[in-house]
Amino acid sequence: MADGFELFTDRSVVAMRVNGELKDLATTVAETDVVEPVTIDSPDGLNILRHSTAHVLAQAVQAINPEAKLGIGPPVTDGFYYDFDVAQPFTPEDLKALDKEMSRIVRAGQRFVRRVVTDDEARAELANEPYKLELIGLKSAASHGESSGDDHESVEVGGGELTIYDNVDPRTGEVAWKDLCRGPHLPNTRMIGNGWALMRVAAAYWRGSEKNPQLQRIYGTAWPTKDELRAYQTRLEEAAKRDHRKLGSELDLFSFPDEIGSGLAVFHPKGGIIRYEMEEYLRKQLLKNGYDFVNTPHITKGHLFETSQHLNWYADGMFPPMHLDEEVDAEGNVTRQGQDYYLKPMNCPFHNLVYRARGRSYRELPLRLAEFGTVYRYEKSGTLSGLTRVRGLTQDDAHIYVTEEQIKDEVASQLAFVLETLRGYGLNDFYLELSTKDPEKYVGSDELWETATETLREVAVESGLELVADPGGAAFYGPKISVQARDAIGRTWQLSTVQLDFNQPELFELRYAAADGTQKQPAMIHRALLGSVERFFAILLEHYAGAFPAWLSPVQVVGIPVAGDFADYLGEIIARLKADGVRAELDASDDRMQKKIRTHTTQKIPFQLIAGASDREGGTVSFRFRDGTQENGVAIDTAIELVKTAIADHRQVSTRDDLFS
Amino acid sequence: MADGFELFTDRSVVAMRVNGELKDLATTVAETDVVEPVTIDSPDGLNILRHSTAHVLAQAVQAINPEAKLGIGPPVTDGFYYDFDVAQPFTPEDLKALDKEMSRIVRAGQRFVRRVVTDDEARAELANEPYKLELIGLKSAASHGESSGDDHESVEVGGGELTIYDNVDPRTGEVAWKDLCRGPHLPNTRMIGNGWALMRVAAAYWRGSEKNPQLQRIYGTAWPTKDELRAYQTRLEEAAKRDHRKLGSELDLFSFPDEIGSGLAVFHPKGGIIRYEMEEYLRKQLLKNGYDFVNTPHITKGHLFETSQHLNWYADGMFPPMHLDEEVDAEGNVTRQGQDYYLKPMNCPFHNLVYRARGRSYRELPLRLAEFGTVYRYEKSGTLSGLTRVRGLTQDDAHIYVTEEQIKDEVASQLAFVLETLRGYGLNDFYLELSTKDPEKYVGSDELWETATETLREVAVESGLELVADPGGAAFYGPKISVQARDAIGRTWQLSTVQLDFNQPELFELRYAAADGTQKQPAMIHRALLGSVERFFAILLEHYAGAFPAWLSPVQVVGIPVAGDFADYLGEIIARLKADGVRAELDASDDRMQKKIRTHTTQKIPFQLIAGASDREGGTVSFRFRDGTQENGVAIDTAIELVKTAIADHRQVSTRDDLFS
Repeated sequence: MADGFELFTDRSVVAMRVNGELKDLATTVAETDVVEPVTIDSPDGLNILRHSTAHVLAQAVQAINPEAKLGIGPPVTDGFYYDFDVAQPFTPEDLKALDKEMSRIVRAGQRFVRRVVTDDEARAELANEPYKLELIGLKSAASHGESSGDDHESVEVGGGELTIYDNVDPRTGEVAWKDLCRGPHLPNTRMIGNGWALMRVAAAYWRGSEKNPQLQRIYGTAWPTKDELRAYQTRLEEAAKRDHRKLGSELDLFSFPDEIGSGLAVFHPKGGIIRYEMEEYLRKQLLKNGYDFVNTPHITKGHLFETSQHLNWYADGMFPPMHLDEEVDAEGNVTRQGQDYYLKPMNCPFHNLVYRARGRSYRELPLRLAEFGTVYRYEKSGTLSGLTRVRGLTQDDAHIYVTEEQIKDEVASQLAFVLETLRGYGLNDFYLELSTKDPEKYVGSDELWETATETLREVAVESGLELVADPGGAAFYGPKISVQARDAIGRTWQLSTVQLDFNQPELFELRYAAADGTQKQPAMIHRALLGSVERFFAILLEHYAGAFPAWLSPVQVVGIPVAGDFADYLGEIIARLKADGVRAELDASDDRMQKKIRTHTTQKIPFQLIAGASDREGGTVSFRFRDGTQENGVAIDTAIELVKTAIADHRQVSTRDDLFS
Repeated sequence: MADGFELFTDRSVVAMRVNGELKDLATTVAETDVVEPVTIDSPDGLNILRHSTAHVLAQAVQAINPEAKLGIGPPVTDGFYYDFDVAQPFTPEDLKALDKEMSRIVRAGQRFVRRVVTDDEARAELANEPYKLELIGLKSAASHGESSGDDHESVEVGGGELTIYDNVDPRTGEVAWKDLCRGPHLPNTRMIGNGWALMRVAAAYWRGSEKNPQLQRIYGTAWPTKDELRAYQTRLEEAAKRDHRKLGSELDLFSFPDEIGSGLAVFHPKGGIIRYEMEEYLRKQLLKNGYDFVNTPHITKGHLFETSQHLNWYADGMFPPMHLDEEVDAEGNVTRQGQDYYLKPMNCPFHNLVYRARGRSYRELPLRLAEFGTVYRYEKSGTLSGLTRVRGLTQDDAHIYVTEEQIKDEVASQLAFVLETLRGYGLNDFYLELSTKDPEKYVGSDELWETATETLREVAVESGLELVADPGGAAFYGPKISVQARDAIGRTWQLSTVQLDFNQPELFELRYAAADGTQKQPAMIHRALLGSVERFFAILLEHYAGAFPAWLSPVQVVGIPVAGDFADYLGEIIARLKADGVRAELDASDDRMQKKIRTHTTQKIPFQLIAGASDREGGTVSFRFRDGTQENGVAIDTAIELVKTAIADHRQVSTRDDLFS
């Protein structure tokens, strides 16, 4: 019998796993228990650090404003939040005062002490906390088999015992504050250190429902050290500079007009040409790789989504129906029943109809149906954000129908195709995630799942890329490989997915005539490469911080005459580039050269071609690059060839040496 | 004082225009009247012939079935129809009997005699004809300023006087039959001759509303001579063979799955690649011609269509709204008002939002915004037909914003662009139509209309193409040039439209900064080149009768080995073609060569490449064309080059001499 303090002397150990379960270091363990340390820089350790910091925040709020009622306060990616019911929203001054009070609590080194309570004890102790009382009620209900519906609430009440954490003053032994919480926590507040900060305030409905009261949420971040906090803040600043919403507006790429509605993007000419190039490259790749193009409508009778089960599983994400074709006679009697039509949230059922438009033979498989299919999803307006969370999105959707024997080869060639194509967009740093069966939620036989999962794993391993497990992360209809890409500032994005599906071929009764003459059921692979064109647009925009490689740049070349005299000379070069399909413009405005260079550098145009007297005499032109470097006196033919090659090869050219070396 | 029989002795004259108004030949005219002959082969003359034939049909129906009640019986394109309220639909046997009875009436040479009546007289004479009584009532209402809403009804009652036409037996002078009708008619039934035929029967609601009783409609056709009737019937047969719905199914191009709904097409792989090539060619043309691509959503808040007035003028053509974003509290009180969202029936308002997303300068004009915009229109399900009348259609829509001074040059270059592009699709036989102001329905000053119309006329005349007037055919917001194309069997289709609009720039308060620093309003040009991708697809499919030029063919080359031995040799040639981006396939099936040739000829594949022993020895291949002609012993490199050039040049190759001559 010992506790974690005795077992682990390393000060970076902040909790432990006992037989797989996270526990406070103070927990007493038996000799037969399997005990593992949890260090502060591990994912579990960071969660505990952030969760404890959230407690200190709540303690500080109630120290300053005893009337504040507590909501919930879980760790989230890179930080934490805590919700409060307060009469007035928090001001920046409030946050400063809270910061000060939190620092005091951290320095005081209060111990986090876990205490098991009965429902009635908890209700008595937290009688002034109406939201906590509600959670206690939910917890009782949950232990009778009802679901609370929100993962974050489990941070408070969890499964099993009901527990309260006391913050205990180490000198007096008095309880300075307490919270309903499943834990675990750091041993004491001092271990929070100084790598934390409060970030911002937002409104949030209690338990996420607009039918409930609105609370005030304070977001914070916490890291093991001050340096890590600073690095995180720098990353945030860098990300803010690259924010696609900001760049989209600065570079005149897209907007979300109020007149149209939330989450519905409009691409302006400069965004439209980038989108065209993105799609055009993908279209050519698809054609080269044996895809067939199909086109399907954006609306359908509801029956189709009943067959596909979307109206069972996905109705909340769908727009409300439009009732069509009802006929009513002069007396108001319905003489013909109408039909509910829906905007499509997914393309798969439509592609299944193309598949079964006629009999299929094994000779036709794999059949790869591809479409840029715009789908509409009824996301809550509060959750919409730029191009990454929208209501209308264009999926580069493909559905591939294969025999069981073809699955492995097809998945392998899909993965190779996906990675090659992503590299063409300038993304190079990938790892894979393998999402496997959720034992609570799946269709199909265990054998089928095992074989299919093993097939995906083999393909993933053979790719040589890092492979991360995502146990239980698969959709109910089959396992999935997803490609995760790291962008220029190290953030990871889930991009392409290759997902097996044994369910829809069954629901749609898809068949093919096998070589032996029998009718068999194909397997189906859902494959999205960009995911959605809009989201991928945002990712590339942030990855490049708007400084796209020339092939994606709205304006690829701008001609800047040293003075008006040279406009004609440069104009001819620009005209030759345009004739070759290069997006080239001559800036013949009255601005002075230096101003033009500034303007076009701000617009992140990859090639500025400058010409003055010596260029005209020598039949040359000068290159200026985004970073201000130059290459003077380049022969016209060479210049044109260099530009065209850089475009054709999808090369990123930011500085002189990228083109001349 | 004289009548038309005295003025015009030419027997092909069947009516006349007196001071511009169509009149029976029997009408007495004054010396001061301007009188012009109407010959039977003119558009007016054909209408009169067909209208008189419709009367004879109705007379025959009531001769055989005196209980039949008369609806209306107007001339239509190439023929006429008449609606009847009868207990049983007409059978093919009924039509034969009607044909016989009509021939009798025609031979009898009954005279059409016009007689002016009062409302009361008409009601008394037609007391047994409830539908005619209703028309008399509408006519009375119309003369008090109410609109009847259906042009066809004016054939019966027209404006001005109420008239009845008697069919008078020339020997007895007795009235054999009569009908409420504004006329004019042929002098007598004998002039109908034998160039007519009954075509088919359909159900139709009285006055087009499903709230009214269903009538039986008999369609017929009528021509000045039997030869012209035969030529028309041959054209119909040819058109039926080319019917895009039939070919679309035979060639596996598209379908309209019941599961999705009426008028919503799904393009299969072979239709999808044709559509891709159609769009891809147009995209390249747009880029070369200074267009900017934009992307806009398929749905919007209703407010946008209020601004554009579509919800005033076009609500019937729009799908019903979806009500979004309403929030309701636990007591059911609306805490946030929702919004009605609509599927877009048109793209223009969205492009206007892109225009005004920021300030515009005269330097940016003309600004040409282009989009393949899919729109949804709530056509009645009974009116839907194949790809030509659908509920979901993709417009190749462009809106061009110009200064007033730029209108002429821009319209001229648009017209040139449109014609050049249409020729690239293989259409070569055009004429223009100029739609001008409807004096009853227009916005903007008369001066503006006159200048704009004159500008369009000048551009049209300068094009050198035949120009047909369409007086009153303009939309309320501005005049229009449309390009009409004749297809391979001489049918004409309205294709591209170039339409001026002074209204939307006003409604959307569009502005640009002029060179003098003032804010001015641009004019707007609506330009659709294909019209809709779906309809244009149908037109090309019928024009080519499915035998597309190679660039549009789903499979461009098929390799047919004389025997299995030569599959490897031919396979290498096919692989080289595929590597060069040609859609080439090797038919390595077990079928015999002759069967393969038949199969691929039926599939209208432009190039069949055949290889046997002598080809393998000589390093050659044989071409077989759709018409069965061949060219043997073509060197492989030459063969590949010929195929690639024919594709790149959009050439139609149907026979040996198209490629080797």
